[in-house]
Amino acid sequence: MAGSTYGTIFKITTWGESHGKGLGVVVDGCPAGLPLDRSDIQNFLDRRKPGQHRYSTQRKEGDRVEILSGLFEGRTTGTPISMMVRNTDQRSEDYSKISSYYRPGHADYTYDEKYGFRDYRGGGRSSGRETIGRVAAGAIASKLLEELGITITTYARSIGPVTMETFDREEISNNELCMPDAQAAAKAQQYLEDCLAAHDSSGGCVECIVHGMPVGVGDPVFEKLDANLAKALMSIGAVKAVEIGDGISVAAATGLGNNDGFTIDEQGHIIKTSNHAGGILGGMSDGSDIILRASFKPTPSIYAPQKTVNQDHEPIDINIKGRHDPIIVPRAVVVVESMTALTLIDALMTGMSSRLSNLKTIWGKH
Amino acid sequence: MAGSTYGTIFKITTWGESHGKGLGVVVDGCPAGLPLDRSDIQNFLDRRKPGQHRYSTQRKEGDRVEILSGLFEGRTTGTPISMMVRNTDQRSEDYSKISSYYRPGHADYTYDEKYGFRDYRGGGRSSGRETIGRVAAGAIASKLLEELGITITTYARSIGPVTMETFDREEISNNELCMPDAQAAAKAQQYLEDCLAAHDSSGGCVECIVHGMPVGVGDPVFEKLDANLAKALMSIGAVKAVEIGDGISVAAATGLGNNDGFTIDEQGHIIKTSNHAGGILGGMSDGSDIILRASFKPTPSIYAPQKTVNQDHEPIDINIKGRHDPIIVPRAVVVVESMTALTLIDALMTGMSSRLSNLKTIWGKH
Amino acid sequence: MAGSTYGTIFKITTWGESHGKGLGVVVDGCPAGLPLDRSDIQNFLDRRKPGQHRYSTQRKEGDRVEILSGLFEGRTTGTPISMMVRNTDQRSEDYSKISSYYRPGHADYTYDEKYGFRDYRGGGRSSGRETIGRVAAGAIASKLLEELGITITTYARSIGPVTMETFDREEISNNELCMPDAQAAAKAQQYLEDCLAAHDSSGGCVECIVHGMPVGVGDPVFEKLDANLAKALMSIGAVKAVEIGDGISVAAATGLGNNDGFTIDEQGHIIKTSNHAGGILGGMSDGSDIILRASFKPTPSIYAPQKTVNQDHEPIDINIKGRHDPIIVPRAVVVVESMTALTLIDALMTGMSSRLSNLKTIWGKH
Amino acid sequence: MAGSTYGTIFKITTWGESHGKGLGVVVDGCPAGLPLDRSDIQNFLDRRKPGQHRYSTQRKEGDRVEILSGLFEGRTTGTPISMMVRNTDQRSEDYSKISSYYRPGHADYTYDEKYGFRDYRGGGRSSGRETIGRVAAGAIASKLLEELGITITTYARSIGPVTMETFDREEISNNELCMPDAQAAAKAQQYLEDCLAAHDSSGGCVECIVHGMPVGVGDPVFEKLDANLAKALMSIGAVKAVEIGDGISVAAATGLGNNDGFTIDEQGHIIKTSNHAGGILGGMSDGSDIILRASFKPTPSIYAPQKTVNQDHEPIDINIKGRHDPIIVPRAVVVVESMTALTLIDALMTGMSSRLSNLKTIWGKH
Repeated sequence: MAGSTYGTIFKITTWGESHGKGLGVVVDGCPAGLPLDRSDIQNFLDRRKPGQHRYSTQRKEGDRVEILSGLFEGRTTGTPISMMVRNTDQRSEDYSKISSYYRPGHADYTYDEKYGFRDYRGGGRSSGRETIGRVAAGAIASKLLEELGITITTYARSIGPVTMETFDREEISNNELCMPDAQAAAKAQQYLEDCLAAHDSSGGCVECIVHGMPVGVGDPVFEKLDANLAKALMSIGAVKAVEIGDGISVAAATGLGNNDGFTIDEQGHIIKTSNHAGGILGGMSDGSDIILRASFKPTPSIYAPQKTVNQDHEPIDINIKGRHDPIIVPRAVVVVESMTALTLIDALMTGMSSRLSNLKTIWGKH
Repeated sequence: MAGSTYGTIFKITTWGESHGKGLGVVVDGCPAGLPLDRSDIQNFLDRRKPGQHRYSTQRKEGDRVEILSGLFEGRTTGTPISMMVRNTDQRSEDYSKISSYYRPGHADYTYDEKYGFRDYRGGGRSSGRETIGRVAAGAIASKLLEELGITITTYARSIGPVTMETFDREEISNNELCMPDAQAAAKAQQYLEDCLAAHDSSGGCVECIVHGMPVGVGDPVFEKLDANLAKALMSIGAVKAVEIGDGISVAAATGLGNNDGFTIDEQGHIIKTSNHAGGILGGMSDGSDIILRASFKPTPSIYAPQKTVNQDHEPIDINIKGRHDPIIVPRAVVVVESMTALTLIDALMTGMSSRLSNLKTIWGKH
Repeated sequence: MAGSTYGTIFKITTWGESHGKGLGVVVDGCPAGLPLDRSDIQNFLDRRKPGQHRYSTQRKEGDRVEILSGLFEGRTTGTPISMMVRNTDQRSEDYSKISSYYRPGHADYTYDEKYGFRDYRGGGRSSGRETIGRVAAGAIASKLLEELGITITTYARSIGPVTMETFDREEISNNELCMPDAQAAAKAQQYLEDCLAAHDSSGGCVECIVHGMPVGVGDPVFEKLDANLAKALMSIGAVKAVEIGDGISVAAATGLGNNDGFTIDEQGHIIKTSNHAGGILGGMSDGSDIILRASFKPTPSIYAPQKTVNQDHEPIDINIKGRHDPIIVPRAVVVVESMTALTLIDALMTGMSSRLSNLKTIWGKH
Repeated sequence: MAGSTYGTIFKITTWGESHGKGLGVVVDGCPAGLPLDRSDIQNFLDRRKPGQHRYSTQRKEGDRVEILSGLFEGRTTGTPISMMVRNTDQRSEDYSKISSYYRPGHADYTYDEKYGFRDYRGGGRSSGRETIGRVAAGAIASKLLEELGITITTYARSIGPVTMETFDREEISNNELCMPDAQAAAKAQQYLEDCLAAHDSSGGCVECIVHGMPVGVGDPVFEKLDANLAKALMSIGAVKAVEIGDGISVAAATGLGNNDGFTIDEQGHIIKTSNHAGGILGGMSDGSDIILRASFKPTPSIYAPQKTVNQDHEPIDINIKGRHDPIIVPRAVVVVESMTALTLIDALMTGMSSRLSNLKTIWGKH
């Protein structure tokens, strides 16, 4: 079915393949009146652009975005915002070989079984380039959140076995790996060199902190804020686990250790005394920072020899060529941030009508 | 907004509160022609019924389901199936105290902030009894899956610090904790006795194995099968992490170790040589077993004293009374299974139109 | 697929068959804080109750509604409101004959072809009793609209060839046919007597006027307010045409005659100088009254002999027995009103986020 | 909210403004394996292209479509098909005047009230050029329908007071007005000359006949096939009424005259003896031709002087300049056909799972 649309009121639809004419997104439902220009989008896209460092694919794409609709005199008009990035550095000949067999860890086999055939060039729609549309849309969602005083900080928490031990927000943009800990980043770089030498690749973990969320965003039952965030993050290729707050460690915890007490701050506001819950209670934001983690599997495209089968159902040995990232985590940071932003803004918008008094506030003005 | 509906084509809508007149669900979009009777539903509900063992709430509810529509002469008709369970053992007086303050780990505070007030009796809509509708609907989804040769096995993988070490399917229904390992179950029971003695509670982990899925179910990009399963499981109260296949351990893995090779089985079918991916590649089922895990936080209602605040923004000390589960994991097993079944059947139904040839197969018959 | 759910944020799901245990609806997404009691719903249901006059079915149903969830201390809580009416006067034996053949003008044949078989008792799900859920939900939607100063007036504009010539709002509830013109009502009654004598039935037209809508409700392109109203009304069984404002007569009009000019009223507000558009411009409310008309076909169940076929594909002659309305229009008035109210409240709720400033207004409060 | 997406499984999202960079559509959920090339789309777009005859706007747009994604080796891949048409002949200076006032019959005022401001150039998003995306998507839907043996014939039934009296399918493409009756077309042309001379414009009616629909497509209750067709057609700008089959005339009919009997044809199939219902019973296709009519209001942009108000709430007199169609009906024919095709293909796709046996047919293959 149609699987390329995300959101209820703030709705995005992405399109495009790795080696097609380009990739893009239509953002529908963006409120009118947001100041926006091309650089807001481009800055986000530049954070996921390939070819920026030694650990990302050497494909050279400018990934220059064009805004095709939805803006007038520097502001969003409330109509769909269509954005497009043209592909320029496809080298489809690299991929002619893979048309006949199924790469381990990739979606080649499942695409063929679902659709009967596939656009095999560069992974087609299953390429990481699919996230261009998500990030372009995420830039707009993030800007809306900023207008409401909500900010998101995202970084690589771990690369392979190397986990951050200190947190310095400034450091995130200082190193190529987007880690908030310079020492860990240095260790991780050494680890990646070892992976490269072994023709291997590495997994990692991205963490995301949302600050400034109002209380009561998200809906009980199926549309819980954490449920939607889990979907958002798990929908990113290569993510195999999503955690909120203390995550998997809650399974071994006890109630006394895990419960967050409430108290009153100096301004008289209710706050929690701890944040094991990661900012969400009963599916609704509780005013504390929202804390998310996504675990990424290692890039499946590796240079080391592997065993697989071809479309004629014959076992074969393969050596994958092409231009691949030995680690996708640093480039995935902005994708996680974008999916988080998209989920939050939609929850804020759908949540406006939870009280009759809110309806009266908005429609009484008219 | 409306958060009590789940699914695109196979759609369920749940309703009801802990201490209201009852709880129920409307299942819409169920294909016509499925043999179904009340016992199919009741058997599922009995697996989550309270009061069955020492580690669950002592509330006595028969949870007897009534089917109100959608069946005719023992088969589903294709019209909505409405099902209801009446509450019978509410003791709302137990809860009068909690109306004025916010219990740690519960949704009292977030409900009040979202809606302006709340039905505080027994947690209202945020009670675990909300899952009755999910399980009644899950029974139908499971029966449909069985008709397609798809089976789901679900069990407690860990209780607090005690994790299963062996797997014996028969054992799952032999012990009160739904663990597939009798020895681990015995250890876990001892652990729970200690928790009870300390007026504390325990978390745990539920694991779910889906066998027999066709290849190619699920949609690339936002409607990935794993993304929807993550949402499904994270939408269950108390779940703080969802993992697919190797889950969080992929972050520390390398490509060589994590990639699943392909080979040909004796019948000439393509199969994977391992299953780190947990049965899903690129968001679509790959024919291997689908493996899911959900981490549950400890029951927040504990008898030990806690600190919190009341609605007047005053810090207070509380001792929660009532009838609570010291561990919800054993009763949550069938809830995880139900949410998984609901997600799979919807993906199978929305996935019927992925190829033009399928459209011709169905509509050429008419 | 699931076709029994309506609405995006204010979402209703109906269930039930003519001769099943009952019929009902779950209303999800109702804002918290609306004062509501059973009589609000019952009053609406009483307007469509059978057996009230000579021109409606003689089936005697109290249609007494039970509210099962979503209320606390007299107000809506924001959680799903489940409502049910038990069937009490089914006489299924009346229908045993129709199980084997296809009644002209009914959905017997199409149900069988779609689902493979059908619950034939009283038309099953295709019975007019299906509208009970719509009307119960419509009562809530109407009450919300009233809180926003929006009122709806609905009436029979014509019965067969008899069309109203004068408009007296008080008169609508004075005559059995819900016409705002006593003289026309008298003529229409005579016409219906003639129909009854001929074992025939009559069509008619229901008109609906919405007063007090704010300007700018509805969305351009596919979610135009008139598009959604057209769907809402056409989804009522027996409706074969929907008109907005001047309706079909616009086809023969010219721009000079059809355009509504703008001017300024005494309070300095912009108003239109005429209302050919029926209160909607570009898919959004324009502040004038919204004017809708739905044309209902004659009741297909008539006592006169008809030709049809049976399930064995044999031509047969039939005489339909049972208890049927010779005219459904008077009872359909409240159904049209309900579907209109449901569509408007959903548009108001989804429309709250059209401007960034609205988002700031709501979320700045928190 | 997001109002630019249409469909459940076959989902389209349109974007673009009259004087922006271009307009386009993303078609998501198209089954894989449909042969498709640019000319399939271009042929449809050419039917709505401006500047083709004396009665359409003199704006010269090639409306050349570019397909950006979703095709591989001449077939659809199952991934989103993105299509774009660049604007080339905008003359925004024509519109600078209208920025300050509200044109009668246009959406200027409602846009301003909804969003706070508007892109006034050429009507922005409310321009008829918005339908480019609908038609490009409709071309694909129509091609899918053809593969299933379903064909659609659409034409101008009336222009102003001139209604067709004979039906000759070949004639539809012979005259500039798309009427199936050459004599009526000649009369209508004379009528339009009179309108032009009077600086006035004309309305008209478009009729659409669907042949070859399988029985049982569409869903009872809210997702009735006629309900969705009504929404589809009413969502086209300028449509003020939608009729199915006998349409508004059913209100004055009796059951005996309106009921369609059933009989058996020579092949032993069940057929109807008449088609007052217009091919839909109980919201599902009944195998007869589906008959739809949409009434279009006259083009609101006329050269004759009109009275209106400006944004400062002052009454003013205006003379609208620009390049406008005195009649939009001929160009709207393909828009009606496209919206019909989009609605039908989505109903066919969502309807595949109505029976358990269908599920087994599709998933048993894998």
